[in-house]
Amino acid sequence: MDNRNLTLLCDFYELTMANGYFFSDRKDGIAYFDVFFRDIPDGGGFAIAAGLGQIIDYIKNLKFTAEDIEYLRGLNMFGEEFLEYLKDFRFTGDIYAVPEGTPIFPREPVMTIKAPVIEAQFIETYVLTTFNHQSLIATKANRITRAAEGRVVSEFGARRAHGADAAIHGARAAYIGGVAGTSCVISAKEYSLPVSGTMAHSWVQMFDDEYTAFKTYCELYPDNATLLVDTYNVLKSGVPNAIKAFKECGITKCGVRIDSGDIAYLSKEVRKMLDDAGMHGCKIVVTNSLDEKIIKDILRQGAKVDVFGVGERLITAKSHPVFGGVYKLAAIEENGKIIPKIKISENPDKITNPHFKKVYRLFRKSDGVAIADYITLHDEEFDTNSPIELFDPVFTWKRQTVTDYVAVELMKPIFINGEFVYEAPTLSEMRDYCKAQVDSLWDEVRRFENPHRYYVDLSQKLWDLKQELLSNGGKLKNN
Amino acid sequence: MDNRNLTLLCDFYELTMANGYFFSDRKDGIAYFDVFFRDIPDGGGFAIAAGLGQIIDYIKNLKFTAEDIEYLRGLNMFGEEFLEYLKDFRFTGDIYAVPEGTPIFPREPVMTIKAPVIEAQFIETYVLTTFNHQSLIATKANRITRAAEGRVVSEFGARRAHGADAAIHGARAAYIGGVAGTSCVISAKEYSLPVSGTMAHSWVQMFDDEYTAFKTYCELYPDNATLLVDTYNVLKSGVPNAIKAFKECGITKCGVRIDSGDIAYLSKEVRKMLDDAGMHGCKIVVTNSLDEKIIKDILRQGAKVDVFGVGERLITAKSHPVFGGVYKLAAIEENGKIIPKIKISENPDKITNPHFKKVYRLFRKSDGVAIADYITLHDEEFDTNSPIELFDPVFTWKRQTVTDYVAVELMKPIFINGEFVYEAPTLSEMRDYCKAQVDSLWDEVRRFENPHRYYVDLSQKLWDLKQELLSNGGKLKNN
Repeated sequence: MDNRNLTLLCDFYELTMANGYFFSDRKDGIAYFDVFFRDIPDGGGFAIAAGLGQIIDYIKNLKFTAEDIEYLRGLNMFGEEFLEYLKDFRFTGDIYAVPEGTPIFPREPVMTIKAPVIEAQFIETYVLTTFNHQSLIATKANRITRAAEGRVVSEFGARRAHGADAAIHGARAAYIGGVAGTSCVISAKEYSLPVSGTMAHSWVQMFDDEYTAFKTYCELYPDNATLLVDTYNVLKSGVPNAIKAFKECGITKCGVRIDSGDIAYLSKEVRKMLDDAGMHGCKIVVTNSLDEKIIKDILRQGAKVDVFGVGERLITAKSHPVFGGVYKLAAIEENGKIIPKIKISENPDKITNPHFKKVYRLFRKSDGVAIADYITLHDEEFDTNSPIELFDPVFTWKRQTVTDYVAVELMKPIFINGEFVYEAPTLSEMRDYCKAQVDSLWDEVRRFENPHRYYVDLSQKLWDLKQELLSNGGKLKNN
Repeated sequence: MDNRNLTLLCDFYELTMANGYFFSDRKDGIAYFDVFFRDIPDGGGFAIAAGLGQIIDYIKNLKFTAEDIEYLRGLNMFGEEFLEYLKDFRFTGDIYAVPEGTPIFPREPVMTIKAPVIEAQFIETYVLTTFNHQSLIATKANRITRAAEGRVVSEFGARRAHGADAAIHGARAAYIGGVAGTSCVISAKEYSLPVSGTMAHSWVQMFDDEYTAFKTYCELYPDNATLLVDTYNVLKSGVPNAIKAFKECGITKCGVRIDSGDIAYLSKEVRKMLDDAGMHGCKIVVTNSLDEKIIKDILRQGAKVDVFGVGERLITAKSHPVFGGVYKLAAIEENGKIIPKIKISENPDKITNPHFKKVYRLFRKSDGVAIADYITLHDEEFDTNSPIELFDPVFTWKRQTVTDYVAVELMKPIFINGEFVYEAPTLSEMRDYCKAQVDSLWDEVRRFENPHRYYVDLSQKLWDLKQELLSNGGKLKNN
């Protein structure tokens, strides 16, 4: 479907820097960049990683067309040799990333890129755009589906999405995060997602009366008729007409949708009316600016809902529409040796973790609960049969020794030397994996408000290295 | 660039309804739909319409491919005759729309679609997605550029946009709304926008020291060097090194960028340092989660800024990321006669304006100030040489008589009988038009906080018709 060449979906500075590296004899230097984020949306206890699928497509399809190069030439900023070099530009490095659907935590690498500096730097913008967008929506979808406590949640937000990709990939990410399906047909087709929909008020208005509109629809869709019952009046007109139409057509697999008014009150009244009519199998679908807070609140009030259709507040992550993933230099190579790099800041929260690293998630052997994430240097020996002492990287006197754990390396090789080496799971597998991984977190981490902070700790070696760089202006002492 | 077939970017119910109209012998009936919105983002006094360009492309390229139809067939919901009909589906109706860049107000039609009901209904989702997204961003960009009071504002948000389209078309919409350019290369190329960028912290970190990084950059870009001065310390290291590099290379057309810390304080100190060094031409660029509120506040404190680079809070419209445009049935035709339709709701704000309509903006002849918008029936005689009595559609005793005005019809024909009839202005013309139209509004309407509500009034005939429908259950009395 999508054969756009998005190579130039980059910030202009990626190109001015690339040209700069090219002409300052740095183009063959190797650089390591980490992708990580700092703040969890909506004050939650974790985020859900997503978007890797589209990042893979982008990396595979990187190509500056003759037209792209002509455009860049016309800007009079780039050297001819550099423009010539772009003709054969492709990604030749390594990418490691956490699988889509993984719960992720602030300041741990979720993707590491090792490549010649121009390549590693150039892909920054697209990687961030895609990771940030889909992780934002997967995270929100996960919150909303958890709030629904087992009830079905469908994604209905295309019309309020920030353009076509936001609708298409937003539905994809929402599915990874836990929704059951989408109303967005193109996304359902592309990603084999369950598709669903009901009817608009205009369908009802198009007929002389509500009953005729309902009956016509039931005759057309006897296996799957969900009728919108709030065009005139839910209780006085919509539901009585719906029941009449269902009975007239002998339909039992059906639903009614409420799109306005007091959902908690109406759903309870509607349930009673349906049950009194013997329509116990008729589902109640509710829509209208729902999110996890409203869903929790109306369920608390006993709302009788089978399906939540969630639109604008999911597809835009309205309450927190920015996912702040960043792309930071962690190391470079000089004469085949890795030189760690750190970004020092007045703001301690903005200081980066240096060097080429690995991230392990430690699960308790007895019940599979996730205990902590543990970041090490890439070449650190790590005996998972020995107890491991974890300590808070800031309040270092807070220590615990962990025994009987399983350590799972979070980032998988995606590209090695430019070759795609990953066997991506299906979207349905990602969704199952996401649910299982979220279930492995402590209840306290999964809480919606003021969750417990999950432990993300550094190995002693990494911590020592970081201190050395911090106390020595970003350089190693022996340098 | 973009040759995706987005025909299936629709909510599933558009297709189930279409199939329903097809098999209930309604497919040739004509329907009129209005696009309008209810709430102005951020509590502003107006919004800016945008997105028509992409809606036009979509309408022109509507086509169900064989693969699309095969997919739909596999869902077992659609009749074979309907699937056959989709093979030659195209848009054969009329579309009227306000030009991009027009200030628009709640509850007035900004687009009217007249077409056979299946076609008119089918395009709903894409029209709304595109209009909502781009109007959201154009409106936010207009707020931000107005807050900058003549200083340059550049769009730098691609990495936080909700996917590729949100970055690409977001930059387009931001330009219509008033920004000077973008960092998003693909958007700049596609829409001929000014492109700009500076450098990342990684550039500075890649060198042994900040001064070498700066000097290398200055040598490469002697005509346009903007140096990022906050990697280590703005005042103690960044600016002194920048001045040294500029002087060393004899550069006067240059800039420094501050991306962290207290922008108001730092920019004043930096301005002094630059001026003391004789670098009066060196511009100060600031970035870091800016929006109209922060810009107003730091300017109030005397910040010395030449260029604002605005990222996530513009490209996601963070403070209000949903634009609530809706698509509502206004009329149908029966036996060649237009039958007005109204959506009645318990919530008066959700009641629609019925019938096929026109919208006029009345400008004062003497100074071109916009007085009010005036909505009439499509065939209403309207003598612009006569005084016109406007009245509030709710508080009908609030009346004013307007004389010496010019009436401009806001919606232009875009498609007539499926033919594209519009001569679209260039983006640069849209941007100029937007600025001129915003300037034509009262100061009180342009205010950021608690603006005056602009008058959007109905003609007496339209008001009478609406009352008739409201008091008669949505039907005309003689029906």
